[in-house]
Amino acid sequence: MPERRGRLSLGDVIHIVGTVLLGVSAAIGLSALVGAGLRDGSFVPLALSAAAAAAAGALARHLTHVPTDINFREAFAVVSFSWMAVALVGALPYLLSGAIPHPTEAIFESMSGFTTTGSTVLTDIEAVAPGILFWRSVTQWLGGMGFIVLGVAVLPFLGVGGMQLFRLEAPGPTADRLRPRIQDTAKLLWVVYAALTAVLVVLYALGGMSILEAVNHALTTMPTGGFSTRNASMAAFSPYIQWVAVAFMYLAGTSFTLHYRTLGMGPRAYWRDPEWRLYTGLILAGTLAITLMIVDRDVPVEQSLREAAFQVVAIVTTTGYATADFVLWAPAAQIALFLLFFLGGMAGSTAGGMKMIRVLLVLKQTWLEIRKQLHPRAVFVPKVGRRAVREHVMLNVLGFMLIYMMLFGLGTFAMALLGLSLPAAAGVAATAISNVGPGLAELGPTANFGALPWQGDLILTFLMLVGRLEIYTVLVLLHPGLWRR
Amino acid sequence: MPERRGRLSLGDVIHIVGTVLLGVSAAIGLSALVGAGLRDGSFVPLALSAAAAAAAGALARHLTHVPTDINFREAFAVVSFSWMAVALVGALPYLLSGAIPHPTEAIFESMSGFTTTGSTVLTDIEAVAPGILFWRSVTQWLGGMGFIVLGVAVLPFLGVGGMQLFRLEAPGPTADRLRPRIQDTAKLLWVVYAALTAVLVVLYALGGMSILEAVNHALTTMPTGGFSTRNASMAAFSPYIQWVAVAFMYLAGTSFTLHYRTLGMGPRAYWRDPEWRLYTGLILAGTLAITLMIVDRDVPVEQSLREAAFQVVAIVTTTGYATADFVLWAPAAQIALFLLFFLGGMAGSTAGGMKMIRVLLVLKQTWLEIRKQLHPRAVFVPKVGRRAVREHVMLNVLGFMLIYMMLFGLGTFAMALLGLSLPAAAGVAATAISNVGPGLAELGPTANFGALPWQGDLILTFLMLVGRLEIYTVLVLLHPGLWRR
Repeated sequence: MPERRGRLSLGDVIHIVGTVLLGVSAAIGLSALVGAGLRDGSFVPLALSAAAAAAAGALARHLTHVPTDINFREAFAVVSFSWMAVALVGALPYLLSGAIPHPTEAIFESMSGFTTTGSTVLTDIEAVAPGILFWRSVTQWLGGMGFIVLGVAVLPFLGVGGMQLFRLEAPGPTADRLRPRIQDTAKLLWVVYAALTAVLVVLYALGGMSILEAVNHALTTMPTGGFSTRNASMAAFSPYIQWVAVAFMYLAGTSFTLHYRTLGMGPRAYWRDPEWRLYTGLILAGTLAITLMIVDRDVPVEQSLREAAFQVVAIVTTTGYATADFVLWAPAAQIALFLLFFLGGMAGSTAGGMKMIRVLLVLKQTWLEIRKQLHPRAVFVPKVGRRAVREHVMLNVLGFMLIYMMLFGLGTFAMALLGLSLPAAAGVAATAISNVGPGLAELGPTANFGALPWQGDLILTFLMLVGRLEIYTVLVLLHPGLWRR
Repeated sequence: MPERRGRLSLGDVIHIVGTVLLGVSAAIGLSALVGAGLRDGSFVPLALSAAAAAAAGALARHLTHVPTDINFREAFAVVSFSWMAVALVGALPYLLSGAIPHPTEAIFESMSGFTTTGSTVLTDIEAVAPGILFWRSVTQWLGGMGFIVLGVAVLPFLGVGGMQLFRLEAPGPTADRLRPRIQDTAKLLWVVYAALTAVLVVLYALGGMSILEAVNHALTTMPTGGFSTRNASMAAFSPYIQWVAVAFMYLAGTSFTLHYRTLGMGPRAYWRDPEWRLYTGLILAGTLAITLMIVDRDVPVEQSLREAAFQVVAIVTTTGYATADFVLWAPAAQIALFLLFFLGGMAGSTAGGMKMIRVLLVLKQTWLEIRKQLHPRAVFVPKVGRRAVREHVMLNVLGFMLIYMMLFGLGTFAMALLGLSLPAAAGVAATAISNVGPGLAELGPTANFGALPWQGDLILTFLMLVGRLEIYTVLVLLHPGLWRR
């Protein structure tokens, strides 16, 4: 157990970030091999990027000592700086290959990958070398992997996103508790993640995707990322593939801890989880409501249902693939979808957004406040399952949601300062902080973010990072107490 | 002190609502006398309305017993049903005079008055009989008076809007505490309210308004209402009058308890109040920011400053008079203004919105959560002035703000279902729940709400009521426990 006190040693932080960069260098190197196999001209820029990442990582490690222990303050800095460093290094292949010549756009694309957002600046995706697109998909898969370890191992220890902690600590009704050591837990969840990805490659390929397409889309479905190798995104594929994507986006937005638990308990583990019931119920209700709003005589009902289900699941899970241009839907259907932008999937999944457990807690708290008005002297304790939620946890959750809304409001304002219309500004701010992907109005699912000024790239890059790292992790860097000796 | 337990006697509720209706009948009767003096044809419809209100009130009292005591549950029902009954009766003059022939529009206009919102369905205000317009202004003045007594006497007793309680209970640094009996307090605050209104009539008249115009506008400035007798609203008057309105909207959005306290302590009572500092600071910062955004070579700086100050104060205090059509401003200035829609003035003022004290508490809680990340074992207590804020109060405040945002989201969705564009739907939902007045886009400050379908009138009427009664007061009626015996 690392120390909670002690000064922050920048050397220790840099050393660990250097190690992370070496890992990323290996991943870029793998992409370079894919590029070499495809003979698409992407080998050289990818290999150069891998070398640069390796050099940066090795230099960072060379200049600093091996940390004897990581303390509490350092952990915050390591998480935020790792994501930033990786996003910077990950932008190199785009720049060196010329696929994205502007630095802020390349950083935006890279951060959109590593935060599993899925917004893109690319106008013509199909014109980009397949090796570069493979790297682009890999950034999302790595981002999802990073977020799983963050969710089950790092954030609970830091006291951020207390919900992950909540779930792991919850005394289960049976003896199937997760193995207590969080490092082992992370590895087990990675196995679940990798296994689901492998199954998805097969299912996509069975639907007629090429192996490369199947791998690319599996790598961006499981982390709820949403990058596609097609300009038309998932609309380029068959209804079968779209339904497969719906199912796996849904699974990716479900807690991986819960998936693992079903190995012992069977499917009743899902049903017993109140967060899962809310997550699944909201998706079903949202799909039904939007189907009714977009259904049309001239279109088969299956198509309306599929488009509604696809967009609802893509947005609730914050994957953000498109099949339909929802900007063309009626305003009410767009607003229903926009309200879903904020919710997010379950805690412990790869999804972004506020997370369903927080939504559940705020609903319980609301009902409790109403009951309190009637019985002011009674003491009510909100419960999730059988577990009581203490006041300081509830305050953290409600505070999180309000900061989320404040950042959304400020982000909308900042984007409007750059000249965007009100719906477009609100759409991109919401999609960035919730790591969804598409925006609204002129930045909807068929558009791309290439037309934004460079300040907009950086604002959205910041919002994607803050959203992905559950806000407090990044905001705490602004506290002078972190840096004081 | 009424009982907190005990069953709800509808008879008691109806009896008190009947008494309130008698009071409203007297106010309509006064307006009828004004109409008779003006010989504008409004005497008959107003007199008939007064008679109908008196008959309804007398019947309600006749059919029920005099309540021996009001219990806790009855107080909730009395507040909500009084506002509803008064809004219904207050719609009669519009209907009977033919000024607003559609029932839902007349109810909307009446509720907009009694909740001091200021949204209007009238297309050509100047074509309406002055006696009817006088009644329209009176509804806002009565609404403001009702809200003062609600804020200092009723809500704290019910445990809703705990901030008023918070202020009254706060041990002041000196001995100038308010008189403890809340009934007396309400009367004292009414004196402040009436005195400021009288001063304002004089100041408006000195600026060239006719006496009738001065009275009308004073009656709608002090309750932060915003109804005007001119189609151009405050843009019809001189810069002097606009600056006077800025000053008195600002005073009306300040806590009346605080105004009263300065009678003993002098102006330092303002400065010592953290909520006042936030309220004043935000208005100054907002005015500066928006001035910079709208300043233009072709327009004198005084005019840009005046338009910015006027709109910022009109919206923060939720008065909602217009001088400029802010829909024509740059999107960033519009969004800055729109973010202000939610804040509201100080608790204990006549303003709507979330109230500055809640904004202050949420900011303190945010900073505290960040500090908690760094010192997880330390116990931090948020303070306002010298007073600690307990966790259950903070939970109430954060919960209030989230329910507010949820109702705003649902209201936006409902209005979009009726066919409004996204910005228009968001604008009207926000303006209704915060009791501001103008909306955005096609329902901006120069537009009116007459084009809405009747369902929209009712949705906004509901949001105005819920916002004005601090949400919980109305939502608690939905709890079956209130009605159970």
